[in-house]
Parts: sequence; C-alpha cells; structure tokens
Amino acid sequence: MKGYGMIRVGQPGWLEHEKPTAGPMDAILRPVMLAPCSSDTHMMHGGSGPVEDRILGHEAVGEVVEVGSLVTKFKKGDIVVVPCTTPNWEELGVQRKGGNNAHDCTTASSFKFLTVKDGVFAEYFSVNNADANLVLLPEDVSMEDALMTTDMMSTGMYGAEMANIQLGDTVVVFGIGPVGLMAVAGAALLGAGRIIAIGTRPNCVKFAREYGATDIVSYKDGNVVDQILAIAGGQVDSAIIAGGNSATMNQALSVVRANGTVSNVNFLDATDAYNVPTPLVFMGMGDVTIRGGFCPGGAVRIQKLLNLIRAGRVHPGKMLNYKYEGFDKIPEAFDVMDKKPSDLIKPVVKINW
Amino acid sequence: MKGYGMIRVGQPGWLEHEKPTAGPMDAILRPVMLAPCSSDTHMMHGGSGPVEDRILGHEAVGEVVEVGSLVTKFKKGDIVVVPCTTPNWEELGVQRKGGNNAHDCTTASSFKFLTVKDGVFAEYFSVNNADANLVLLPEDVSMEDALMTTDMMSTGMYGAEMANIQLGDTVVVFGIGPVGLMAVAGAALLGAGRIIAIGTRPNCVKFAREYGATDIVSYKDGNVVDQILAIAGGQVDSAIIAGGNSATMNQALSVVRANGTVSNVNFLDATDAYNVPTPLVFMGMGDVTIRGGFCPGGAVRIQKLLNLIRAGRVHPGKMLNYKYEGFDKIPEAFDVMDKKPSDLIKPVVKINW
Amino acid sequence: MKGYGMIRVGQPGWLEHEKPTAGPMDAILRPVMLAPCSSDTHMMHGGSGPVEDRILGHEAVGEVVEVGSLVTKFKKGDIVVVPCTTPNWEELGVQRKGGNNAHDCTTASSFKFLTVKDGVFAEYFSVNNADANLVLLPEDVSMEDALMTTDMMSTGMYGAEMANIQLGDTVVVFGIGPVGLMAVAGAALLGAGRIIAIGTRPNCVKFAREYGATDIVSYKDGNVVDQILAIAGGQVDSAIIAGGNSATMNQALSVVRANGTVSNVNFLDATDAYNVPTPLVFMGMGDVTIRGGFCPGGAVRIQKLLNLIRAGRVHPGKMLNYKYEGFDKIPEAFDVMDKKPSDLIKPVVKINW
Amino acid sequence: MKGYGMIRVGQPGWLEHEKPTAGPMDAILRPVMLAPCSSDTHMMHGGSGPVEDRILGHEAVGEVVEVGSLVTKFKKGDIVVVPCTTPNWEELGVQRKGGNNAHDCTTASSFKFLTVKDGVFAEYFSVNNADANLVLLPEDVSMEDALMTTDMMSTGMYGAEMANIQLGDTVVVFGIGPVGLMAVAGAALLGAGRIIAIGTRPNCVKFAREYGATDIVSYKDGNVVDQILAIAGGQVDSAIIAGGNSATMNQALSVVRANGTVSNVNFLDATDAYNVPTPLVFMGMGDVTIRGGFCPGGAVRIQKLLNLIRAGRVHPGKMLNYKYEGFDKIPEAFDVMDKKPSDLIKPVVKINW
Repeated sequence: MKGYGMIRVGQPGWLEHEKPTAGPMDAILRPVMLAPCSSDTHMMHGGSGPVEDRILGHEAVGEVVEVGSLVTKFKKGDIVVVPCTTPNWEELGVQRKGGNNAHDCTTASSFKFLTVKDGVFAEYFSVNNADANLVLLPEDVSMEDALMTTDMMSTGMYGAEMANIQLGDTVVVFGIGPVGLMAVAGAALLGAGRIIAIGTRPNCVKFAREYGATDIVSYKDGNVVDQILAIAGGQVDSAIIAGGNSATMNQALSVVRANGTVSNVNFLDATDAYNVPTPLVFMGMGDVTIRGGFCPGGAVRIQKLLNLIRAGRVHPGKMLNYKYEGFDKIPEAFDVMDKKPSDLIKPVVKINW
Repeated sequence: MKGYGMIRVGQPGWLEHEKPTAGPMDAILRPVMLAPCSSDTHMMHGGSGPVEDRILGHEAVGEVVEVGSLVTKFKKGDIVVVPCTTPNWEELGVQRKGGNNAHDCTTASSFKFLTVKDGVFAEYFSVNNADANLVLLPEDVSMEDALMTTDMMSTGMYGAEMANIQLGDTVVVFGIGPVGLMAVAGAALLGAGRIIAIGTRPNCVKFAREYGATDIVSYKDGNVVDQILAIAGGQVDSAIIAGGNSATMNQALSVVRANGTVSNVNFLDATDAYNVPTPLVFMGMGDVTIRGGFCPGGAVRIQKLLNLIRAGRVHPGKMLNYKYEGFDKIPEAFDVMDKKPSDLIKPVVKINW
Repeated sequence: MKGYGMIRVGQPGWLEHEKPTAGPMDAILRPVMLAPCSSDTHMMHGGSGPVEDRILGHEAVGEVVEVGSLVTKFKKGDIVVVPCTTPNWEELGVQRKGGNNAHDCTTASSFKFLTVKDGVFAEYFSVNNADANLVLLPEDVSMEDALMTTDMMSTGMYGAEMANIQLGDTVVVFGIGPVGLMAVAGAALLGAGRIIAIGTRPNCVKFAREYGATDIVSYKDGNVVDQILAIAGGQVDSAIIAGGNSATMNQALSVVRANGTVSNVNFLDATDAYNVPTPLVFMGMGDVTIRGGFCPGGAVRIQKLLNLIRAGRVHPGKMLNYKYEGFDKIPEAFDVMDKKPSDLIKPVVKINW
Repeated sequence: MKGYGMIRVGQPGWLEHEKPTAGPMDAILRPVMLAPCSSDTHMMHGGSGPVEDRILGHEAVGEVVEVGSLVTKFKKGDIVVVPCTTPNWEELGVQRKGGNNAHDCTTASSFKFLTVKDGVFAEYFSVNNADANLVLLPEDVSMEDALMTTDMMSTGMYGAEMANIQLGDTVVVFGIGPVGLMAVAGAALLGAGRIIAIGTRPNCVKFAREYGATDIVSYKDGNVVDQILAIAGGQVDSAIIAGGNSATMNQALSVVRANGTVSNVNFLDATDAYNVPTPLVFMGMGDVTIRGGFCPGGAVRIQKLLNLIRAGRVHPGKMLNYKYEGFDKIPEAFDVMDKKPSDLIKPVVKINW
C-alpha cells in the first residue's frame, strides 16, 4: 500500500509498505480525514534521530475496514475517531495512579504511531486494542471538530488540566499555535478568570481571544515577564507552556506565585536542556509544581472531548484553516505544516475513497 | 539582651540587641531548648548574601515571658513549641489553595526568623500571631521530640508529603542528614513499601534503617542511578531530595517513572542552577511532577506532628546525638553543626534559666 | 440604630439595636447594596429554632465608616464587597487541610452574620478580621455583580467545585434558583460538557440555559431519574444538589456512576432526615463520593470570583430581577424573597445614604 | 469438577460443575491456598438474593494449569496471587478518573467471582485478563501473607485510602474483624497519629493494638460517640467503617470534624437503609466527605500490597488463626467463618494437590 512519510531524515516522500494485518484486538482503518502535525515535520527533520522509511501522521478520523476476532464494538464501515495515543490496556502502566493513564509503561510507549509502527498518512493503518481506544464519530459532531480531539485538543487541554487551575485563577499560556490555543480554551473551560496568552502572529492572536484569552503579550512589546507581572498586578496562579523553548520554563517560573503550577506540553529538542538558576525556584524550596505531560489516550478521553464539543463549549474545528481534499494532497498539506505561513493555524486533508 | 549569630558573613559571635517588645498578637519567649540547623551555618557563611549583625537560630522550645493584648491562649510561664515558619494568618497568601499554607505571600515570607527579625539564639525572641502559631508542650512528649517538630520533622516529612506517595510505592530518598532521615520516616508513615535511601555515613545509615529505609545506596559503591534501578528492578514511584546539589535533580529524574513525582526540600546555593537535559523529562513531555517546598508552619502543623510522636509512630528526638547544656554552650553547638563530625546527626542545647 | 429582621419566629419587623463598635481588627460598614436570601426568610420562619430580636441579612456591598486600630488595608469611605462567611483567620480550623477554609472550627462558625451577631439589613454592621475578609469593589465590576459573589455565586459554584468535575463530564444540577443557577454556571466553568438542570419555572429555565445548561428536566414531564438516564444515555459523572429536599439525595445517587460524586449546597430543615436504601450505594460499597459544604469565605475567595466576572466568564448580576431602592425598601424586598413570585430569581436593594 | 458453595440459599454443599475453559486472555488455576470470607457466608444466607448452584470463594493463591492464547506473562505451574476483583481492562470504566480503577463499568462488575461465574472453592477456576490481573507469588513473601492481599488487606486498606488521612490525623475505625484490622494497619501506614478502634472481642482488640490502634472503645463501656469525643478531646479527622450496620454511619458523622471524611467498606444488607438526621451533616451543608468503595483490583494493586509486606511494613498473614489443610477441609473452614467463634480472626485452607 501507499503511504507518505520520511524516506530518511530531511527527505519526505511516498513510501510503499505492506498493508497492516489485524491482530485479534486490532482494527484496520483507512483515513477519511487527517491532519499533519508539527510533530510529524519535526520527526522528518530528525527530531527523533535517524529514522528512515517511516509513514508519518497520527491525527485521523478513519473508516473501519477490518477488525480482529476479539473486537466487539466496531465493524467494517464504521467511521471512528482515533486518539493519537492508544494504550495497550493490558499493560500494567495504565493501572498506576497518576494524572495520565495514557501510559503502557513509559511516557512514550502509548504513542504507537511513528514510533513502533507506521502512521496514518497511509491507505491503511492499524489501531491496537480497538474496543478500548476507538470512538464512533457521533452524528452531531463535525468531522473537523472530531479530528481535533485526537491530539490538538487533547494535548492542549491536558496542559490546562495539569496546571491545577482553581476557579477564578489567573493563568498564562506561552505559545498560541493550535496546541496553545486549545490550552487557552482548556484554561477557560477549567475555571480560569484572566488568561494571558503569549504570542505575536495576528491570526493566532485573533483565535486566542476567541478561545478565551483576556490579554495578549508579545515579545515585540518588551520583556515578556515584565509585561505579564504588570498586567496581572503581580504573580499568576499557573502557567502553561505550549511553545517556545527550554528558556520559556524560566519565564514561566518567574511569573508563577508560591503554590502555583507550571505545566508543559511543548515538545523540545532532544539536544536542548533546561537551565534554571536556583533563585527562580527559591533555591529549590519554592513551592511551585512543575508538570510535563503527554496527551492522554483511550476512548473515554475522546468521548469526554466530544462531549464538550456537542455541548457547544468549544469549537476546535475552526482552527483548520488550510483545507485540502484527496489522498494525493497529503504532501501539500504536510509541506504547509512544515513551512508555516504566517496565517496558518492547522492544515487538514479530507479523503473521499 | 544577648544573642548569638553572625557579626558578618563568615564571623559568628555574640551580639547585644534590644529585647523585642510584644505587639498585640505577639508572644515574647525565651528558649529552653534549641537546635542549630545547617540553614543557620549556611547563612553565616554567606548563603543568603551579605547579612550582618543578625541573631541566628529558628528551632526552639520556649517559655512565654510576655504576651500581646490580643493573645488569649497563652500566658507567662507556658512552655511552647515554636514552628520555624510562623505565618501571619491575616495575610491573603494563606487563603490560596495549594499544598502549603505556610505562605503569607511568597515562599519565604512566613519564615520570619533570620529574615525579617532576629532568631531564637537569644535571651528573648518574639513570635507573631502567637495564638495561631504556638502549641503548648504536651506533658507526654519529651522536649527533644517536640523540638524536632519545629523544622527537621516538618521539613523532612513535607518532602514525603509532596512526593505523592501511594500505598506500597517504592520511594528513593537522596540524603540522610536529619531532614533526609525525617523524609525516610515520612515516606514510611505515608505508605511507602520499599524505601531506598542514598547516603554513606555509617551513623546516618544506621538511623535511616531505623526510620524505615529498606535499602541503602552509597556513591562509593558505584553509579547511584544504576544501583537504584537495579535494586528497584526498574524505575521508582517517587524521589525525595534532601541533600546533594542541583545535579541530584537529574539523578532523581533518571529513576522516577512516568506519572511519578520528584520532591525537593534541599536548600541549594543561590549561585547554583539546575541543568536538566530534555531527554531526562522526555523532551519536556515526560509525565513527571517536580515539586519544591518550604516547611509548612502554624500551630496545626505542629499539633499533627506531636500527634504522631504521642502515638509512637516516630521518635525524632533520638537524632539529637550531640547534647549541650546552658545558654553559653550555643557557640559550641553551632560550631559542631558547622564542622559536622562524621557521627553527628543533630546537636541540641538545653537551657535552664 | 435601625435594622430589619425578625422580632421573633414568624414575625419580621424593624428593630432598634446599638450601633456596633470596632474591635482592633474589625471594620464597621453601612450597606450600599444588599440582597435578601432564602436563608434569611427561612430563619425568620424558625428554620434555625427560636431566634428573636435579630437583624437579618448577609449579602452586602458596604461602605467603610470606621476601622479598628490594626486594620491597614481599608479606610473610611471605601466601598467593599463583604463575603457572607468571614472566618477568624487566627482560629486553628482554617489551618486544617480540606476543600474549604471557611471554617474557624465547625462548619457554621465562620458564618457570623445571623448566628453570633446581627446581619447586614442595618444602618451599620461589623466585619471581623477586615483585612483578611474584605475586598475593595473594583472599578470595572458592577455593584450588582459584586454583590452576587458574596453568597449566591460563592455557594453555587462551591457546589460545582465539590462535584469533582473532570473535563467533558456530564453533570446534573438539581434546582435552578439563584444558587442552582450559579451551580450550573460553575459546572460549565469547571469543564462540564453536558449539563442537565432539573427545574420547572420558565424564567429559571431560561436563565439555566443562558448559564450553560444543555438539557432541562422537569418533574412535570415524568420521573426525574428516568428522564436523566434517558438523556445521558446512562449514568452521569456528578450531581449537584441546590434545591429539593432530603429525597433529592436519592435521585442524585440513582443517576451518578461508579466513582462519581454527589455534592450538596442545599440547606435542609433541621427536622428532615436522609433516608437512603443501601442498594442506592451498592450496600455501602458503591464508589460514590457524597460531599456537603458551606460557602467558603475570606477575601481571596471574593477576589477569585471577581476575577471571573472581570474576565467576562459569568454575569451573575443579571439574576437580580426585582430591584428596590432605599433602606426603607428592605421589608418589601424581604417579603418578595419570602413569597417567591414565579418569575423571581433574586431581589436587590440599592441604598443611597 | 468438584466445588464447594451454595446449593441454594441457606444450604451450603459440594457441587459438581464443568471445568472452566480458557478464553484467549484467561488463565485456568487450581487453588493452593484459599480463605473463606464473610461475603461468602453472607451470600450463602441469601444476602445477594436467591442464588443457587454457585461455587463460592474469592480469596486464593493458585497454580496455573492452563493459559489462553494471548497470555504472555504466565505459564503452567506458576504460583500466582489472584485479586478478588479482576477488571476487564478493555472495558471503558477503567479509563474514567476516580479513586478506584477496579470498575469495568459499575461498582460490582469487576468482582466476577460469585457474581458472573463460579468462585475459587473449586478444583479449577478461571481468571479473566490474566496478564493484567495476576501476580507471581514472590519468593520472599509467605503464601499466607500473599493470600491476605487478595481481599482483606486490599479492602481494609482501601477504607483507609478513601479516608483522606493527612500526616498526624486522628482516625476512628469502626469494626475490628479482619477488614477493620487492615483498615487500622492502613490508617497507620497512611500517616495517622492516634487511631481509635471500636470493638470488643479480646483477640481482635489484641490484634488491633498490634496493627497500630492507640485506643480501643467498646460499646460495653458506654456510648461509643461520647467515648470517642472524650478520648480525642473533640472531633476526629476521619472515620473508617468496617463493621456494624447502617446506624454506624450516624456514629461516624457524629465524631468527624468539618472538612473530615467518613469512608465505608462494610457490606450492608440490601434491605437496610441509612437514616441520617440532617443535623448530623449540618442540614446538608456540613463539609464532610462520605465515601464508600469496593476493593480495587488488578495486578498493580497486588504488587503494591506485596511491596508493603516485603518491606516489613505489615504482616497480614498472622490474622489467619484457624488453619486447615486439604481440599476436603473447605466445608469445615467455611463453617467456622459462618459460626465465628469468639477468637476467630480468619480461617485458611492449604491445599496440596
């Protein structure tokens, strides 16, 4: 079968792989709508090391073409939402206490596309533990909105969930790409009062306000930390990092109050390092919680996010502002994700088989 | 009045200051038992910058000699336990949600001894918000045990409380000085199964085992991270840092599993910096919680710790293995704290006025 | 001075009491806007036993006329928001862990109006621990909105806070009077997807939808439990009780799933009793959390709620749909609260001294 | 095959059933050590309605005799610990947030022995999702101790886990049968200071003290509530109900402070009802959390409990004070569980095939 991904680092292209076969708990799907993500382009550029001959893509709504012998909830022809993290629920990691049950055993191990198998930019792709991971597309949710639950909304809102927001808190969100925008929306949905979003691109700023930001700070207007402290009239309760680099952590620690929280959902380079002078955390004894996290997976996560969409609490699909149609348009959509024109929020490809 | 502290950085000595006077909510006390702490010696050596003419000391059991007009619970002659952190409960910081209600507004602002006023190595010292911060020494608790609640037990166990220990977890404690020993005891009290303590000095090792450590790791026997992973058969659930330096954070992050927690109660130098390569936190997205914290204050905290002692759950007073008697022995006790002979756990001075 | 309240059970009327005097931490205020509450009328009818000669009222925005010697943040002429629960922050209850720091020591003891002293329907009233309990009315918040933070918004949203709502949960709210409406708004602010509100009065239904309810259930259309289960397609995640009687608990327990939560902010009669057949809680072992609670107090609580209003997240003042002007209109407003005409949400009295 | 259970309500006896067969994720085991539980005898007497022809028993250490095609971690001959609750980890209930991940979908649905299939008092029994639910018996844990993790220790300690115990809290445990004893041990392991155990039988009292109770209250010495309040000097922080009947809830609510917690792990009769006068919960607004719960299942739960045993934190096996040997001794052990002689803590049967 045909799939699009990386021939090797730096070289995207079409690949010819074998069609995946269904184990007893698996489903085989073909994508009916998919979205490239900066994690895909990041990997293509070598962000995860010297990968080669790998089909990319991990955000999809798919059509079931085959199910394994133990799958009971889905059948050929079903249109399903596919979380980008698909835990093997028989692994013991999911039984451990903690904020995130996406983990088989390590942070990454539930994220199976791109890592242990091919991604969704393919004629066919497989999903493990189908009954526990897939969700039927509801009739009253648009495919665009549903597609956004698979990663952007789940990841961005997880940034907000980790930030321990209390009713009426003031929250800062660093970065207003699609994940940051969903972090803004998540902060609003979780009870934040003032939300200060850090970003510059006009289209992102417009979306940030629509999703709930009350204030916008741009590095172009001066020192970001100073601006935040001035707007908030002092330190804030939580900061969510959804953009920037390792130095953004220091900005976050500078603006968060005692007993506050910094959460991170930004994927940094493996060659980067946090460098935090101890006074930023009161010589190690500052009562600040720092949380990183990877987007939770599984069917219930998707159901909850769909519930928000159906209730009209958030409309994530409108972020998809570069639209393509046809399997053969994947390269074009992937390229726009890579080039990031200034008004891009997120590209999408609709596929009519 | 006379007090012992730092004449200037690097020069400890006796000082002659005015006796403090009681504001309406204050109590004036004289120490009947006190303990030097490494924070005192650290400050004397310049750890908090160019302080001069400051009476040191923040761990004391005291006798009330005077109370302010609004104090209702205490009277002259009462023997009271004095938490080292004494919040002003009228400040708004204490009303904020969070793990630690010790904060007036910033992490440090509830720690008033040494910072905004003189410490307890004096003929007299004052305590703010006396009704809300002091606790009468119970008849059935020894003064040594009670003294240990004021900082060592409160700080060490706070390290364990922040570590989000679940019943049966495996926990690592870095450092087994008095704070680390109380972190070990705290981890055992909070449900840890295996407790791996990192330390080398034989007397500390002996105490660590008594307080609940099941395994001991010494840097002398090889790479600490490798030893921990071998003992635990993989990553552990939580790590508590109660010693070492900024690099200890990286060891902790190396051994803690996805959804685990690292908590820090070690006071680092203001010139130090954490340097954390991003792979240690899965490029920022590793589901690990990092918490620092400062010992909670107030009367209820002390009552709870006394409750543990009275129930026989822990015997912290036995850590006081260098004993002195008399106000004039403060310099000697302070000096032994500074020199740290190899069998020292913690020095104490009893004062009979 | 003059005040309005209960001469004795069943008999409201004007009273002549002495003007309160300011202790060192107190402020004396006169009301500039106030609202009767069903707790006031409930008490007048004997709901709290045989009280007599008591000035009622506990929801007010006031003007400072005098402050005690230790008050530093407020001065004569300041217009301030007055939380209905005003803890004495020197009491140890506030230091205990738990969801609610409104407690001096018992649930009720922080609610001082009506209980240990006169209420706010008076020419003057006093507020304890003024620095820690009062908040200056912000310039950009209307007095009506601010008034609603003192009890309705704080209580109703506390119902939602106790309900342990996770992003995308389905939540039921029993009762859509002003507290129930704020519970609906709180559930929406805390991340609920579907919100099923139980109520019948058309004006309340209209407001419930505006505040975020996605579905309305009325007892007039059949069995409430059956309707909820049908709408939700099974059990829901949380239920908030803000109306009804002790039997409402059984309806709530019937609709909440395993690991779900029922929270209650409805004030029941002292002669009432919960009667819960054990099968409703799986013979005692059903994994459901039941939480009651009393509106948290203090300045930070009010600041947080004002922060929500300023950010445009909620507009509680619009519930005030019976408006009066003048101190002498208190009896009329009180009477309308007591009679509850069918379109009433909440009455308010503005006072121009 | 042969099994022991209930022929019908009120009539225990031997049954002849077909040997279970292994589905792809199942394991077939035979018991090598098992323990009757009061839930078994309760069911035999009709506590779960008109059940007939059912093999009883749900506490076992077993030997693997066969595994399904997808089972990878276990093989014939392995000696394994079998949690009494064995969730189907492919069901969505386990993905929901909450304290207990034992639930497939309802509270009971993960407890499969006795309900949807035969129990462990049989020559053979089956375990679903074997890889995710079974744990190899560690070499350094005795079979008796391991057997106690399957229900008594897991259930009793879950009572303590739900009680939200903070370091140094005072906790009351109602009932000191084997579950109550493990609740006492759990409270001690989770940081309780004073633990007041309610019970009368001398052998239970002796064990309660050994497991950590500091005080014992017997109804024979007067009103239980009064005695608790006198010992604690007021209300306590948490209460765990592990015995008694529905009226015990009222005793618990009478002794627990504002912001405290009552947890229940006692199995009540289906014909019983809680009857709670509203003043016990401050007219519904008392800030008390009430939690019931069913013993969490799965392999990680058992691993954690084994970790506690291996670390020497608790020795649950010593509760097994009526010992039997041989498959044919099941009726005798079952009968002693039913009759409860005054010195019985818990019976056990060792089986050498």
